[in-house]
Amino acid sequence: VTILGLDVGGANLKLARLEGGEVSLLERPFALWREPHRLHEVLAEAARDLGGARRVAVTMTAELADCFRTKREGVGFVLDAVERAFPGREAWVYGVDGRFQTVGDARLQPYVVAAANWMASATLVAASSPDALFLDVGSTTTDIVPIAGGRVRASAFDDPSRLQAGELVYTGALRTPVSAVVRSVPLRASRCRVAAEHFAIVADVHLWLGRVSEGDYTCETPDGRGRSRSEAGVRLARVVCADVEMLSEEDITRIAEHVARAQVSQISSGVRQVLRRVPSPRLAVLAGRGAFIAREALSPFGLSIQEMDPRTSPAAPAAAVARLLAEAKGP
Amino acid sequence: VTILGLDVGGANLKLARLEGGEVSLLERPFALWREPHRLHEVLAEAARDLGGARRVAVTMTAELADCFRTKREGVGFVLDAVERAFPGREAWVYGVDGRFQTVGDARLQPYVVAAANWMASATLVAASSPDALFLDVGSTTTDIVPIAGGRVRASAFDDPSRLQAGELVYTGALRTPVSAVVRSVPLRASRCRVAAEHFAIVADVHLWLGRVSEGDYTCETPDGRGRSRSEAGVRLARVVCADVEMLSEEDITRIAEHVARAQVSQISSGVRQVLRRVPSPRLAVLAGRGAFIAREALSPFGLSIQEMDPRTSPAAPAAAVARLLAEAKGP
Repeated sequence: VTILGLDVGGANLKLARLEGGEVSLLERPFALWREPHRLHEVLAEAARDLGGARRVAVTMTAELADCFRTKREGVGFVLDAVERAFPGREAWVYGVDGRFQTVGDARLQPYVVAAANWMASATLVAASSPDALFLDVGSTTTDIVPIAGGRVRASAFDDPSRLQAGELVYTGALRTPVSAVVRSVPLRASRCRVAAEHFAIVADVHLWLGRVSEGDYTCETPDGRGRSRSEAGVRLARVVCADVEMLSEEDITRIAEHVARAQVSQISSGVRQVLRRVPSPRLAVLAGRGAFIAREALSPFGLSIQEMDPRTSPAAPAAAVARLLAEAKGP
Repeated sequence: VTILGLDVGGANLKLARLEGGEVSLLERPFALWREPHRLHEVLAEAARDLGGARRVAVTMTAELADCFRTKREGVGFVLDAVERAFPGREAWVYGVDGRFQTVGDARLQPYVVAAANWMASATLVAASSPDALFLDVGSTTTDIVPIAGGRVRASAFDDPSRLQAGELVYTGALRTPVSAVVRSVPLRASRCRVAAEHFAIVADVHLWLGRVSEGDYTCETPDGRGRSRSEAGVRLARVVCADVEMLSEEDITRIAEHVARAQVSQISSGVRQVLRRVPSPRLAVLAGRGAFIAREALSPFGLSIQEMDPRTSPAAPAAAVARLLAEAKGP
């Protein structure tokens, strides 16, 4: 039986197709908030590209997109799109309670199925790593989930509580605006305040520093221009209201290094907060495009580090809901 | 002789028409980076709405918009648009050196005419308030300019140096994203990290708190929805990845108050930095839509406060270049 796992995000659609134990992934950047009415057709098209499946397992974070007034409205919209994209297919929706429910039941419990994708990944990781800290640094956000005795030991289950607990840190490897990471950066002999504009994102920082390739820079660029290193430099110069005629390559490198460090310490602070609450495990399991950031953020804590299978890591929740549905006894 | 003063910003066009000592203003929100090719036509239309003029005085900050690769390119583009919008009209461009030059000369000195609008306002203020701190809190940025002995005593003249000196603080009364002001906000008994997204802006904060009216909320809303208090609340709830079904009005008020205070202290820190360098004057002169923020930011410093004439304050640089050109002996 083939299963299609869907992780419906506000900026990225991630699909995983599970067939005979083998998983294939597909990631499709899609700015949902800009054209929500196209969601069902983009989902259907991506699923066709990946290959068909009899059953569909769904998780989402797209309900937070600002085209929806409330999470309730967002969850309902996403479920409508799933039903329209996969008519007649059996669809199951994963919740933060670790269970699958029908689309009909999910509509009635929007706060259970909203933003449950981290629970899917962590539950799957718990099966093979019963005592570990799970870190998924995605394009936009970071999940930090403790696992002990083979069970997910999250202390919080909705987004605001997870942000408070340090289990969700809203910083990622690509889409995060530089102006949301730092207030100031080094510039020549002193510090320089930054522009509160969407001039550059951390994808520009990591591309400039050679940690992300042009091909991995899958999100939109802030200025709509290209993803070359020099184009990223133009955007980074603008962060201090300068341009590439005013700054040297070295000036830009110092700015980028500072932003990268600040982002690492944002994640370290989440890890520290989580490890104050649970006994520290010996192992950290990493997933997501930003595993290189997670490694640095973990360095103060002395854990041994294991990366998830690279065939599933970039879309861990999509692969996880597919596997979890395959193993589920209930549905 | 009638004069048209233009302050060409990246998000706002401000025009002032000076005739017989009387000034009339017009402000037109225009997202230049989205459709730069329309600049000349929007300028011409706005000038027609305000009434004709024989001479045109220009200042700009639009060269920073990210549709331009460099300031040189941006300055050239804006000057082209001015020439196209006002053919046959005598146009003069104001520079950070306090002088007017022809459009042809300005093209050759892009770094002199880029972001010179603060100098125009401060020079005009210096004529009537020879010893003062000039504070212009606009929709997007804040200028803090010391004036002593009737002269502008800026220590820096380009944007990055001004950001370093505290004379430019990139925070304003409307367009600033909440995620660029705070890393966390109070939520119930503890702190909550914020989403690094363009979910809410300070216009939502000040509208929620009753400091800005719907009519004064002249910029675009982040989610493209309306400017009512309840719609602003929806956006503010999203800052902590919540929605209005999860938060009370009081929760949102506490978030808004925290952001407002953080913004005030950003500006106070600029003022403090400037006043370390120059002998503190007794008087502060305020301009811009965010005078209510400037007042709070100045409260630790014990200066007496004077607001600019409300007929020119919201578009001080446009009015200033018009007046300065009228008084100029050279051109």
